[in-house]
Amino acid sequence: MRKGDRQIVEHELQETGFSPESEKAKNKYVEEEDEDEEEEDESVEKIFESREVPSWKKQLTLRAFVVSFFLSILFSFIVMKLNLTTGIIPSLNVSAGLLGFFFVKTWTKMLHRSGFLKQPFTRQENTVIQTCVVASSGIAFSGGFGTYLFGMSERIANQSGDAYRGVKNPSLGWIMGFLFVVSFLGLFSVVPLRKIMVIDFKLTYPSGTATAHLINSFHTPQGVKLAKKQVRVLGKFFSISFLWSFFQWFFTGGENCGFSNFPTFGLKAYQYKFYFDFSATYVGVGMICPYIINISVLLGGILSWGIMWPLIETKKGDWFPDNVPSSSMHGLQAYKVFIAVAIILGDGLYNFCKVLSRTLSGLFVQLRGTTTSISRTSFTLEEDPHASPLSPKQSYDDQRRTRFFLKDQIPTWFAVGGYIIIAATSTAILPHMFHQLRWYYILVIYICAPVLAFCNAYGAGLTDWSLASTYGKLAIFTIGAWAGSEHGGMLAGLAACGVMMNIVSTASDLTQDFKTGYLTLSSPKSMFVSQVIGTAMGCVVSPCVFWLFYKAFDDLGLPNSEYPAPFATVYRSMAKLGVEGVSSLPRECLVLCYAFFSVAILVNIVKDSLKSKWGRFIPLPMAMAIPFFLGPYFAIDMCVGSLILFIWERVDAAKAEAFGTAVASGLICGDGIWSLPSSVLAIAGVNPPVCMKFLSAATNSKVDNFLSRSS
Amino acid sequence: MRKGDRQIVEHELQETGFSPESEKAKNKYVEEEDEDEEEEDESVEKIFESREVPSWKKQLTLRAFVVSFFLSILFSFIVMKLNLTTGIIPSLNVSAGLLGFFFVKTWTKMLHRSGFLKQPFTRQENTVIQTCVVASSGIAFSGGFGTYLFGMSERIANQSGDAYRGVKNPSLGWIMGFLFVVSFLGLFSVVPLRKIMVIDFKLTYPSGTATAHLINSFHTPQGVKLAKKQVRVLGKFFSISFLWSFFQWFFTGGENCGFSNFPTFGLKAYQYKFYFDFSATYVGVGMICPYIINISVLLGGILSWGIMWPLIETKKGDWFPDNVPSSSMHGLQAYKVFIAVAIILGDGLYNFCKVLSRTLSGLFVQLRGTTTSISRTSFTLEEDPHASPLSPKQSYDDQRRTRFFLKDQIPTWFAVGGYIIIAATSTAILPHMFHQLRWYYILVIYICAPVLAFCNAYGAGLTDWSLASTYGKLAIFTIGAWAGSEHGGMLAGLAACGVMMNIVSTASDLTQDFKTGYLTLSSPKSMFVSQVIGTAMGCVVSPCVFWLFYKAFDDLGLPNSEYPAPFATVYRSMAKLGVEGVSSLPRECLVLCYAFFSVAILVNIVKDSLKSKWGRFIPLPMAMAIPFFLGPYFAIDMCVGSLILFIWERVDAAKAEAFGTAVASGLICGDGIWSLPSSVLAIAGVNPPVCMKFLSAATNSKVDNFLSRSS
Repeated sequence: MRKGDRQIVEHELQETGFSPESEKAKNKYVEEEDEDEEEEDESVEKIFESREVPSWKKQLTLRAFVVSFFLSILFSFIVMKLNLTTGIIPSLNVSAGLLGFFFVKTWTKMLHRSGFLKQPFTRQENTVIQTCVVASSGIAFSGGFGTYLFGMSERIANQSGDAYRGVKNPSLGWIMGFLFVVSFLGLFSVVPLRKIMVIDFKLTYPSGTATAHLINSFHTPQGVKLAKKQVRVLGKFFSISFLWSFFQWFFTGGENCGFSNFPTFGLKAYQYKFYFDFSATYVGVGMICPYIINISVLLGGILSWGIMWPLIETKKGDWFPDNVPSSSMHGLQAYKVFIAVAIILGDGLYNFCKVLSRTLSGLFVQLRGTTTSISRTSFTLEEDPHASPLSPKQSYDDQRRTRFFLKDQIPTWFAVGGYIIIAATSTAILPHMFHQLRWYYILVIYICAPVLAFCNAYGAGLTDWSLASTYGKLAIFTIGAWAGSEHGGMLAGLAACGVMMNIVSTASDLTQDFKTGYLTLSSPKSMFVSQVIGTAMGCVVSPCVFWLFYKAFDDLGLPNSEYPAPFATVYRSMAKLGVEGVSSLPRECLVLCYAFFSVAILVNIVKDSLKSKWGRFIPLPMAMAIPFFLGPYFAIDMCVGSLILFIWERVDAAKAEAFGTAVASGLICGDGIWSLPSSVLAIAGVNPPVCMKFLSAATNSKVDNFLSRSS
Repeated sequence: MRKGDRQIVEHELQETGFSPESEKAKNKYVEEEDEDEEEEDESVEKIFESREVPSWKKQLTLRAFVVSFFLSILFSFIVMKLNLTTGIIPSLNVSAGLLGFFFVKTWTKMLHRSGFLKQPFTRQENTVIQTCVVASSGIAFSGGFGTYLFGMSERIANQSGDAYRGVKNPSLGWIMGFLFVVSFLGLFSVVPLRKIMVIDFKLTYPSGTATAHLINSFHTPQGVKLAKKQVRVLGKFFSISFLWSFFQWFFTGGENCGFSNFPTFGLKAYQYKFYFDFSATYVGVGMICPYIINISVLLGGILSWGIMWPLIETKKGDWFPDNVPSSSMHGLQAYKVFIAVAIILGDGLYNFCKVLSRTLSGLFVQLRGTTTSISRTSFTLEEDPHASPLSPKQSYDDQRRTRFFLKDQIPTWFAVGGYIIIAATSTAILPHMFHQLRWYYILVIYICAPVLAFCNAYGAGLTDWSLASTYGKLAIFTIGAWAGSEHGGMLAGLAACGVMMNIVSTASDLTQDFKTGYLTLSSPKSMFVSQVIGTAMGCVVSPCVFWLFYKAFDDLGLPNSEYPAPFATVYRSMAKLGVEGVSSLPRECLVLCYAFFSVAILVNIVKDSLKSKWGRFIPLPMAMAIPFFLGPYFAIDMCVGSLILFIWERVDAAKAEAFGTAVASGLICGDGIWSLPSSVLAIAGVNPPVCMKFLSAATNSKVDNFLSRSS
């Protein structure tokens, strides 16, 4: 998830607490208790010097993959639930890391007691689990179950009334096939560049670095202690959240029943989706997301559902016909979707240009200084103490890490050969799946892809910002327009989006994993293999999880349902825009779209030009756009999460820093995993026994009359 | 409330955390922080030596009575709410003490800043406030608004279908008059005995002693610190509880709507009143009551609503007619009420005998050794260091306290004269109010009363156990039977109960206050005046508060309503028993009543004979009887409170000990005071806007159909 999930909250990870600095704060918390080993940050590898680094084959243990498999199921559920409810997916690295550590540690401890332990649990193995889980559950996002792939379905098409432009309903078979042919290409495209990215360019990859710090810290004596405490906190909130969801379930015996329809601020506010829906998930998400994201989402909700929609509603019969149902794309719904699309595109365009320019200028600087860099590297390899006076003297850590990173090589012929074989297979198979997607479209994508994959990996390394979804949208518009509306351009565009997104997303994921591996002395080979296995798991697990949701909830994808899958509609609408142009929009909608498109760009410019001192108070247009379509109820959940964290930080900052993420992860995971039993119950036809209903006092007296008459 | 409230949970205060030992624990908590003044417990008066003790007139300040007035309104609301919901009233001394301290301290601090402070805040003044508030809100209990007085009303009479036997509907005028003529007698009856009780007999009065300790501790430097923290905690939970009640209100727009009808354990369990009703009050009550009370209430609920009522229900048409409404006293309701009455009478009888025998044997021992005791006292007065070697040497504290206690004398002629004048007035007036109550009944009561008042005051001093309600029940039966059913015996019995209860309850209250005054160097005169003023306040405030409830809630007193006033029915049923005998009970009900009456006595015998080691695990029959009539929902609240406290004690015992009562008081007070705005809203005709309804899935689909058809 390190990458993919950033698509919606792309800004997010830059600012999350999950950074090396916060790791330091956590260590500080432990040190306050222990007060020893203060120099840990100075040389991590000195601490680990005495421990043998296993060979790459020994890093890939069976137990690691078994644990990964179960965790990947867990996280696939969580990511799928988030995909289908709002599309906001926070960084779940910490929980993946913690849980992986917890399970293998328990396993090895049990084996150790029974005397069967052959191999101790190393940080390399931990990195392998982390990589595998993240790769696998990343597919749950980049597979597009909440975006392009589900956007092809008849159910979404019917909402905008364009089913005649081509639909493809989800089915377990073709989804798995599709994922298998498109998900591995990205891995091969960046393998040859790993040394340049990690050692020569020394890209930071903030998330990858933070993950490595986390894993390293788990394996120091004090780290083990803190990790155990965090696991306990996570477990506690996991149980609370799970039980709370379970409890809520009993009261949802009917439409609009239960806590998720609680009109916390009254029925009038509820009509405009202002209510607290008691979702542990989004309270947890709010605790992980930085404050500005939560505030932005809330502001967006107030702007749209509090001001704009009520105003536009008064134009009913004038701007748009008044006889269409509320969910029709010929009514108010069109404004909701297309204004959100406009903002997302505006924000995306700005950030694409920004990251691209930084990528190019960064590359330019690197390439000019590349000779020095490479010569320095060769010095290092010979362990020459007289390094160039211009470059800082290499630390012990860097030397040791570089030596291990370069020990295991993946041959370039393997990478290039693999890419070509998979690309060829894929080009041959995909047109049979989507007959609208001609083989030459795919070929063009695969020719451009390595460059875009490199750009994305490089950009992510600099800014911690994966633009996978932006590249995907690019594909929707270009391929969609190329195919044209007559030849099923919409479906071609959506399918092309999937192909593109998968390549660039996995590419930046793998590069980031290389960085993590570098910092934990894990072999690049084991990282690659782990990512391949993780991706394969994801290609099987994610479609199955999606299938379970799809079969269990009949109203999946419909607005106002429990799982509205908002971005499925958004992606389909983008494809429609690409194919048809702007002619189909209702009156004044286009003007509003232009306005919001410009405002999104403008806000970003202002934000960046003010620098972080004042800029951090400017809301993010991308985050503001999400409630335009969905309503602000989840924004209220997230702000509750923010508020809890804020108060906690004021009361006990050290504890909040150390355990905040664990609490949030517990809340998210518990609620997320409840969707497994809940969908199983739905499939088995077990309905909740009670309906908690909210009626106005007037309606209630009518209902009471009716009930007393009928009984 | 130190006394009156113990009527229902008479066992309670014996075991509450509110005892000198727990005060020590609280001090320990502070000492852990401060680590000074460890010898505080050895001589309290040494600490206060330097502070001047104001004269008794200066102890009675205007500000004390202003603060008392507002607090007495607050506590009247709380006690009234508790009276009318379940009749379980926990000890609110700590909150009264804390809030009194807080308000006067704030007041004096403000005056001190502005330079207007003439007199510092002393512990004597604090004792005056405490006495006044407790006397005033005690009337809210002993006034019988939830018991005998409301039991006279037509609404309660109609439930048992015996309105023809005499009713007297509540009205502000006669209630106030009644209270004024009966509430002051008790005060005069024990005034002459104060020296014998407090100094000669050295009775312990655990609650009075604990209150004095609390007040003393507030005025030591570290006590001020802890008290401030406790006030902050109380204030926080007060606000939370108030806001929670306010929030709940919005969702009660109709019958059986809102959180108080939340079928937490499913609709089937809800039918039998097993649910958590989200009442902050009873969670708080559960935190104050000892575990065994909460467990007893829950066991009683399970026994009655979980086992017995469902079983008796199957006898419908056999044991009792099947065509009567569920609230009729000719159906299942009779079993509920009379079995509860049997248990309460059995338990009451046992404890009456027990306390009476201990009172008599204690008196016998005291009177035999009285010469020694009195001579010792006279020695002390002359400050003779050569006290009798048999009696322990009097401490500095005792000497100083005795000197101050004996300084201000209330003349005996004043007490006797007062008693005779008030008794005469009362005997003249009462028969005009209740024409069934002949003047000679009243005269007999007033002749016996001083003895009973002394017995009760002495018993309370030994065991901390006021038997006021038991004496009241005695009056119901004796006067009821004497008057006979033909001559309005029921109403005569209920009125006599009020007369008796008020005398014995205020008598033991005042004696206890003398003890508190003794321990805080407050003058007996100021205690007496404070009690008189407090009682007068109570005679005005309590009827007004009751009147507000009565006017605001039309269904007050009806079963299944928000305020069922369970003991009004219980008291009326007892009066009926006294007048009519047992002939009117439905089939097998009498057998069950005899059985439960005997079991209640038996359980008490077993409990006492096992001593505290095992006996403390035996449930209390009195507590078990309450849910028989009401249902176990509040028992679940109380057990939640217990659970919270239990976990808190495990996690941080010192903090739980120091702040548990403050949290509980906050919860009770916040929810209690919400009944003021809620009844004002009800009177003003403002209805809550939303109904949170709970329907079974089947009913819900019917309702959904109906709503979609009708809209």
